[in-house]
Amino acid sequence: MIDVQWEDALTAWRASLGSEFVITHPAALSAVQTTTFATRQSVPAILRPASRQQVQECLRIATRFRVPLYPVSSGKNWGYGSSVPSRTQTAILDLSRLDRILDFNEQLAYVTVEPGVTQAQLQEFLASRKSNLWMDATGASPFSSLIGNTMERGFGHTPYGDHFAHSCGLEVVLPTGECIETGYSRFPNARSAPLHRWGLGASLDGLFSQSNFGVVTRMTIWLMPAPACFQAFFFRCDQESQLAGVVESLSQLRLRGTLQSAVHIGNDYKVLAGLQQYPWHETGGRTPLSAELMAAYRKRLQIGVWSGSGGLYGTPRQVAEARRLIRAALKGKVNRLAFLDDRLLSLSLRYAKPIRLLTGWDLSQTLTLLQPLYGLLKGLPTSQPIGSAYWRKRTPPPTDMNPDRDGCGLLWFSPVIPATGEEAAQVRAAIAEIMLADGFEPMISLTLLNGRAISCVVSICYDREVSGEDERAMACYRHLVERANEMGYYSYRLGVQSMEEVDRHDSYGELMRQLKTTVDPAGILAPGRYEATPRTRAATAGH
Amino acid sequence: MIDVQWEDALTAWRASLGSEFVITHPAALSAVQTTTFATRQSVPAILRPASRQQVQECLRIATRFRVPLYPVSSGKNWGYGSSVPSRTQTAILDLSRLDRILDFNEQLAYVTVEPGVTQAQLQEFLASRKSNLWMDATGASPFSSLIGNTMERGFGHTPYGDHFAHSCGLEVVLPTGECIETGYSRFPNARSAPLHRWGLGASLDGLFSQSNFGVVTRMTIWLMPAPACFQAFFFRCDQESQLAGVVESLSQLRLRGTLQSAVHIGNDYKVLAGLQQYPWHETGGRTPLSAELMAAYRKRLQIGVWSGSGGLYGTPRQVAEARRLIRAALKGKVNRLAFLDDRLLSLSLRYAKPIRLLTGWDLSQTLTLLQPLYGLLKGLPTSQPIGSAYWRKRTPPPTDMNPDRDGCGLLWFSPVIPATGEEAAQVRAAIAEIMLADGFEPMISLTLLNGRAISCVVSICYDREVSGEDERAMACYRHLVERANEMGYYSYRLGVQSMEEVDRHDSYGELMRQLKTTVDPAGILAPGRYEATPRTRAATAGH
Repeated sequence: MIDVQWEDALTAWRASLGSEFVITHPAALSAVQTTTFATRQSVPAILRPASRQQVQECLRIATRFRVPLYPVSSGKNWGYGSSVPSRTQTAILDLSRLDRILDFNEQLAYVTVEPGVTQAQLQEFLASRKSNLWMDATGASPFSSLIGNTMERGFGHTPYGDHFAHSCGLEVVLPTGECIETGYSRFPNARSAPLHRWGLGASLDGLFSQSNFGVVTRMTIWLMPAPACFQAFFFRCDQESQLAGVVESLSQLRLRGTLQSAVHIGNDYKVLAGLQQYPWHETGGRTPLSAELMAAYRKRLQIGVWSGSGGLYGTPRQVAEARRLIRAALKGKVNRLAFLDDRLLSLSLRYAKPIRLLTGWDLSQTLTLLQPLYGLLKGLPTSQPIGSAYWRKRTPPPTDMNPDRDGCGLLWFSPVIPATGEEAAQVRAAIAEIMLADGFEPMISLTLLNGRAISCVVSICYDREVSGEDERAMACYRHLVERANEMGYYSYRLGVQSMEEVDRHDSYGELMRQLKTTVDPAGILAPGRYEATPRTRAATAGH
Repeated sequence: MIDVQWEDALTAWRASLGSEFVITHPAALSAVQTTTFATRQSVPAILRPASRQQVQECLRIATRFRVPLYPVSSGKNWGYGSSVPSRTQTAILDLSRLDRILDFNEQLAYVTVEPGVTQAQLQEFLASRKSNLWMDATGASPFSSLIGNTMERGFGHTPYGDHFAHSCGLEVVLPTGECIETGYSRFPNARSAPLHRWGLGASLDGLFSQSNFGVVTRMTIWLMPAPACFQAFFFRCDQESQLAGVVESLSQLRLRGTLQSAVHIGNDYKVLAGLQQYPWHETGGRTPLSAELMAAYRKRLQIGVWSGSGGLYGTPRQVAEARRLIRAALKGKVNRLAFLDDRLLSLSLRYAKPIRLLTGWDLSQTLTLLQPLYGLLKGLPTSQPIGSAYWRKRTPPPTDMNPDRDGCGLLWFSPVIPATGEEAAQVRAAIAEIMLADGFEPMISLTLLNGRAISCVVSICYDREVSGEDERAMACYRHLVERANEMGYYSYRLGVQSMEEVDRHDSYGELMRQLKTTVDPAGILAPGRYEATPRTRAATAGH
């Protein structure tokens, strides 16, 4: 379905970028059209600019010929749509060739990057400089983009876990091709550009997060000085009824600053999917894994109903005091609480085998799960969590995991709820009820974003190769959204399948549409992204 | 200069608000037209709506008759223009009657307020509830608006000192009269509306800070749980050369989280102006107070070249460890370092008189200066710092201080600089040189906003009743801006006299103009606020 406008645009892009960077090969297009759930959007081309100037050119051409572009940094937005554009017949603007680290300052603790810079790349950069600074990492792929995640307002595990709150100085190419810089960056020779978020006058950074108002081509990320002392803590609850008390205690510690970073609490299903694939053999091929069977697995694998982790950062005495306060706060509320540091971890790794031989306790299995989490608390990216996307597959995950390619089904639903025990327990119960009824395991993790709010990330994991599962998973997603909204909870981030959640067709929506028209008069940048699809179009989407 | 449009608008406003709330009395207009420096803007009327609905009405009428309105919450924006609008012939939209505290939650630690709610009002509210939560306060008047200060991105002294970063869930009336809510507030029954900053989709809060895009009629403010233990620390440097080392040490402590709140460092001139008025008698009426004379006063009054203060918050052990780290970091870098807590303060107050009688040391003078600072570190508003606006007056400050009314001259210039010792010292030297040459005392305070950036607040204090001083002070302000910009430093906030600093006539400025036209097609909301005055208009301003 390539029409004249597209032909003209492709010709202009080829002239601008060089033919090899305007990709229309069916295999390549098929790859970017594929995500971890059913979509019908088609992609006519992939553009691969190498510089901010080329990004501007791409947008100017798109505006001239009125053909839409969808920016993608690394395309690893798994569970939310990967690189699939929000509307059909949209070309991909692949920013992965803009992969330079533009500035770095050890004393003032920041790094300035382009959108193609990945978590792994920054980690290697810091290691090669023997830097004393830590980055924050998410459990997403090490090869996911720092800017991509930040603009989606993703979060990680260290005190710098709120990525958007620890970024500043954006360079943004507007849909018209104009380029602006935010904060102090826009002033000549501004010494505080990488050091201060707001700048002078209205602060525009928020406008370019979770929107389709511009393409971010540069961003400064604040880095955390490595603490003199680091310890992780891990805890376990064996009863569902313990959740409320634990959430209350931890949110108070977070509110009071004893816990400086997000605490993650995962339920049994979530932990099991991190350890192994679906037990097809033992369940006789039936799904979902019932609550009763899950209980049996908990016992066998020594998993709690809930398992939590967090990090302590500071001087040895600051960490010791935090440890004391956590022990006191969780006393009688958890079944196990353990602290881990570098020394203890390396000892455990060394003696896991002899311990197993002597006691029969398989420490190495615990470490398989703990080690990546422990690393994340220190800002080290890991590919371990991606493995759980293969939960319902009948074959084991390959070495080069790629959930999109491998037919993994994964839909994330992430409502934000108040950090109270009562609401956490209510939400947990509602999710479990809906998901088990719909035939999926209720995999839930709760992240204490601050002392007031919890991000509840729910994974619908399935096998796209099983007929009907795509539809059943999407129905389950809708049931979850509907129920959560009824209860007063709303997503913190949206997948490409559900952008209409953002719009209530009220004066706010009207303002957003006006702003969009102002910055993007031709409507060419990521149409449908964080905006409702007009009904007439939705009905005719696909081809 | 009231024309037909204005007459029609006034009639409509009177019908909407009631005649007594549309004020055109010359004395009232004269008061709001007066600030702490020379302005020529005239105000044709003051509107005093009592509700958000009336605010909407006021804006609809303004849009209909194309007459401009300038929103003012409490009018205490001293040093930056008080309630004087950015352009002439603009009516004041006085929001002080919207003074309700709409929501409060002790467990989740927040309060939701209207724009008329003042610092003092919130403090009394918390005290009356016997709340265990602390607010953050600025050194501005206790009767200044919380929303006004937050939307100007003001800062205070506790760990919640970045007011804008600790607010969310805005209700905003747009210039057209439409009303929107930001963050999760815009969704029905959203439980996390007061608990999470970003919400879903583009985050618009920044758009309404330091701008003329909307009137904020509601905001949630996060409050801080009172720590189990609080101590303040105070230090003094007797040599100018010590500044760099102190800034380096403190910014590292701030970056590493040992210091959770802003540290304020004030120079000798700043401290002196807090203690007394200009020594007219001893200087024989000559100004400025030279560096040599300042040195003599330092010796006589036991003031350091720099004096600093900060707060420690936590459990007794957390505070003890912070104290140890501060002692170690400042060792050999300051001449005095003292810690103060509630017990020590009440003892000192009790024994100040006998100590003076016995030793001759006037402890009470020190306490006069320390006590309000100590209170600010605990979030207690104070009117003490306003006294220094009377520095150059020939008569003592009255009990009911009002710098606007009393002819106090005050211009604030507040560039943000990197938190490095070298740059702090360079900026200090440049400011002192310019101000002394221009005939003013270089009153400087440095606030470590975070571990990376310092807000440098410079006060030009003078007596408006002295002929020619208004012009000399404004010239000095321009010299400071010019030199700072050359060095790469830019204001964090602007006075009404200097809004053109915000605009560089580039693609950013163009985008801002487009956005303004979109939200305010009639151009009636605070024209000229955080936007450059077109040259043609500037030439004809005044009347």
